[in-house]
Amino acid sequence: MNQVIYLRNRPEGRPSLDDFQFVQEKMPEPGSGEILLKTKFVSVDPYLRGRMRDQKSYIEPFKLNEPVESGIIAQVIESNSDDFEVGDHVNGMLQWKEFQTSQGHGLNKVSASTAPLSAYLGILGLTGITAYLGLEKIGKPKKGETLLVSGASGAVGSVVGQIGKIKGCRVIGIAGSDEKIDLIMEKFGFDEGINYKTTDNIQQAIAKACPDGIDVYFDNVGGETLDGAINNINKFGRIINCGAISLYNETETPMGPRHEGTFIKKSVLMQGFTVRDYVKEFGPPMQQLAEWLKNDQLTYSETIVEGFNKIPQAFLDLFDGKNKGKMIVKV
Amino acid sequence: MNQVIYLRNRPEGRPSLDDFQFVQEKMPEPGSGEILLKTKFVSVDPYLRGRMRDQKSYIEPFKLNEPVESGIIAQVIESNSDDFEVGDHVNGMLQWKEFQTSQGHGLNKVSASTAPLSAYLGILGLTGITAYLGLEKIGKPKKGETLLVSGASGAVGSVVGQIGKIKGCRVIGIAGSDEKIDLIMEKFGFDEGINYKTTDNIQQAIAKACPDGIDVYFDNVGGETLDGAINNINKFGRIINCGAISLYNETETPMGPRHEGTFIKKSVLMQGFTVRDYVKEFGPPMQQLAEWLKNDQLTYSETIVEGFNKIPQAFLDLFDGKNKGKMIVKV
Repeated sequence: MNQVIYLRNRPEGRPSLDDFQFVQEKMPEPGSGEILLKTKFVSVDPYLRGRMRDQKSYIEPFKLNEPVESGIIAQVIESNSDDFEVGDHVNGMLQWKEFQTSQGHGLNKVSASTAPLSAYLGILGLTGITAYLGLEKIGKPKKGETLLVSGASGAVGSVVGQIGKIKGCRVIGIAGSDEKIDLIMEKFGFDEGINYKTTDNIQQAIAKACPDGIDVYFDNVGGETLDGAINNINKFGRIINCGAISLYNETETPMGPRHEGTFIKKSVLMQGFTVRDYVKEFGPPMQQLAEWLKNDQLTYSETIVEGFNKIPQAFLDLFDGKNKGKMIVKV
Repeated sequence: MNQVIYLRNRPEGRPSLDDFQFVQEKMPEPGSGEILLKTKFVSVDPYLRGRMRDQKSYIEPFKLNEPVESGIIAQVIESNSDDFEVGDHVNGMLQWKEFQTSQGHGLNKVSASTAPLSAYLGILGLTGITAYLGLEKIGKPKKGETLLVSGASGAVGSVVGQIGKIKGCRVIGIAGSDEKIDLIMEKFGFDEGINYKTTDNIQQAIAKACPDGIDVYFDNVGGETLDGAINNINKFGRIINCGAISLYNETETPMGPRHEGTFIKKSVLMQGFTVRDYVKEFGPPMQQLAEWLKNDQLTYSETIVEGFNKIPQAFLDLFDGKNKGKMIVKV
């Protein structure tokens, strides 16, 4: 039998295990031109929370009582296709199933000899490209500028900080434990870190860590951290709204201070970033990231959880910040 | 004697006549290389409220017990300078004085034969350039897009709307009386208008007036109108934060809904705009605006109040929306 994970309920507020359902299906068989895939690595990401709502967004919402999907590395175990051979590894948006068939559309072959397979879900995949293009398209960090990153030990944040250092910025990271602060400073080369959980006043903590103000703020969390950054921003500061994990589980409209006045006074630019807007431009960042990785200018963290049945819990753990770097389930 | 207007107090909340003081000074005499100027037209603008606060902004705050300054058209009545002749009209940042001397720095000669003198304070001056460059640098309106403008009957807003029409947009304006709505539709060619004072729910009113959503929002007011616009914005929408007059007199931090989620989902860009950031680029917009004006593609409104002693009241009247278009005091 083939195990499959359905979305059972649209979560209200914080998702729970009850929102998911394990279903046994019969083993799929590849039709003409199709391949049979065995799931190897599953990416769980905060943005999936958005697809669980029944509302328009940049991608369609998940349907109830149908499989969830996310970025997955799978191996071809049967092939009726001329494009794929048994043994090939592929990367694409696939369903939370142990086995599934595909016609191959939207799948990219990846090589286990170039980089560990899981890296294609992180630093060489959408998260790495998000960090790269968010900085390039909106942040435009210049040598000597101050770059602040929230969610700094996360999959995107840790790459943002390292690219900031490559570009010659002073880089400050915000994360939720002393262990994560050690990680971003020791492993990823951030200049300074702020543990927001042991900080009374995030705005003052940012002011102290950024005595020259902030030129670029790469925001993965939203909320009060964003407020604190805006209140420390420099003239011509740039803010990348890449994520707002602090708000994803809110059931009422979150309120906060209005910032129009600061935006006008300081000519601040803020822009929402969704990597899917730039699919035609993925080539150069993928190449650059692979090169930096090869040259040891870039490194990454993963939290790898083992077992297909751990996928929902691994997703839930994102909202407790239990991951360091990319959260991946190895099947 | 020479009448001069000082800033007596830094206003708390809404400014009042008590915050200004009329002082008699002796008649100034131009020194070597200097000119003596007689004030003709005085521009009063919402942004002056910001300079009355003792806080860093894009220009220095006014000092207490010293003259206020703003954009002024003056006539040269004595000249010890080779650059100016008696009878010349000049435009520049000058003090609220009936007469003042100047070395001529920062003054531009203007010609009463090309356009009425007061136009140089409005459509051919900073307000016209603000409309032009705010749209060009941030809004980038494209043919067929929907452009929403708040403060639509004001000095900047009325020009924004007309440029939007020249660019082929559908243009909707928000203003505070039925008379102003008539004005923007009849005189300035807006496609539709929203009287926010007779509207219960600005967000719904915007949704109704913009059935295809908003592509560009030129914001002069901030606050709930900005919220309503953001909640109707299209994917890749652009917001120009040009003014926030609804918040200028607040004494506590105004609160409102957080918009990070919308910014991410819709890839929204929002940027503060201050025309002073672009002083080196004033030439082309001035030329283009003069050409459109000459070709009757552009028109403008002024509210002209007469009398030097009316300057403070004219400034206060801005916060009651008593002006239609540029508010100017003729001396």
